[in-house]
Amino acid sequence: MSWIRDHIRTIPDYPIPGIQFRDVTTLFQNGRALQRLILEMADHCSDMKITRIAGIEARGFILGGALAHHLGVGFVPVRKAGKLPWKTISREYNLEYGTDTLEIHTDAVEPGDRVLIVDDLIATGGTAVAALELLRDVKAEVIGSLFVIDLPDLGGADKLRAHGCPVHCLVSYEGE
Amino acid sequence: MSWIRDHIRTIPDYPIPGIQFRDVTTLFQNGRALQRLILEMADHCSDMKITRIAGIEARGFILGGALAHHLGVGFVPVRKAGKLPWKTISREYNLEYGTDTLEIHTDAVEPGDRVLIVDDLIATGGTAVAALELLRDVKAEVIGSLFVIDLPDLGGADKLRAHGCPVHCLVSYEGE
Repeated sequence: MSWIRDHIRTIPDYPIPGIQFRDVTTLFQNGRALQRLILEMADHCSDMKITRIAGIEARGFILGGALAHHLGVGFVPVRKAGKLPWKTISREYNLEYGTDTLEIHTDAVEPGDRVLIVDDLIATGGTAVAALELLRDVKAEVIGSLFVIDLPDLGGADKLRAHGCPVHCLVSYEGE
Repeated sequence: MSWIRDHIRTIPDYPIPGIQFRDVTTLFQNGRALQRLILEMADHCSDMKITRIAGIEARGFILGGALAHHLGVGFVPVRKAGKLPWKTISREYNLEYGTDTLEIHTDAVEPGDRVLIVDDLIATGGTAVAALELLRDVKAEVIGSLFVIDLPDLGGADKLRAHGCPVHCLVSYEGE
C-alpha cells in the first residue's frame, strides 16, 4: 500500500553502514495515517475471531495496543527478559551476534484464546518465531501474525510460515 | 475508579522486598477492561484539543497508541537512549541509584501541536518530568499528562504539577 510507504522514513546506513532503516515514527506521529493504518489492520483480521493481540516490545506495543482497543480484545505484551513482574516463561533466539531472550506471563492467555501476533516489521523472523513459540508454550491458538513492513530478502515471513503461522504484511521492501 | 483496581494485580515484594508492584498486564489482557479504560482516558481529554499523544516507553506505548488511534491524533514515542533512529535530543534523570536517559525525535511535533503525556503509572515522576522537558525542548505545548495509576506517597504527580503540567490519574494507591 503505497500510502503507507509515503509515511515511512528511510534512514540510510542506520544502525550500521549498508542498512536502510525503515522508520515508522513518521507514520505513527501523523494522526490520520495512524488511524487509517489501524483500520487496515483491523480489516485484515475482521473474520479471524481474534480474542487477544500479542504485541512484541516495543513498537509492537503501539500498534498492538491500538488494534486490541479497536477490536475490543485483550492485549498481551511479549517482552524483553526481566521486564514482566509475574511468573514468566522465556525463549532465547539468535541475533546476528549473540542471543536475546523474550518472555511472556504464564497467565497471558486463557484456554481457547485465539491470538494474533503484531509488530511493526519482520526481518529475519527470530523475534517473531520466539513470540510464536512462547504463545504456544502457554497454550494459545496462534491464528496468524500481522506486520506493517516485510523485508522479504531476510526471510522472516517464510520462516514464520514454515512454523505453521500465517503471515500478512501491509508493505514490502524487496531488493532495496 | 474501583473497577480499574479490580483488574490490577498487586505483586508483593517486587522488584525488591517492601515494594507492592501494581501490575497492569491483567487489566490490558482483558478486552472489555482495556476498551473501557481507553474510553475513560478519551473522555478525560475530550475538550483539550489534543493533537498528539506522547507515550513513555514501554507500557505508555500500549495505552498511548490506543488512545492516539481512538482520538485520531498522532503518536510520539519517548524512548530509552539509543532506540530512536533519527535525530534526537536527550534528557538524563535520576533513579534511586544512578541515572537513566530518555530521548525524543527532534521532529516529533510540529509548531502548534498540543500534546498529552501518557503512561501507566506515576511514581517519583523522574521519567515523566524528563518527558515533559523533552517535549518542551522540541517546542510542543504540553497540555497535560494522564496516568492510570498514581502512587501519591512518592510525589511524582506533585512534582509534575510544580513544573506547570496538569496531571490526571484514574486510580490512586495511597499508604498501601
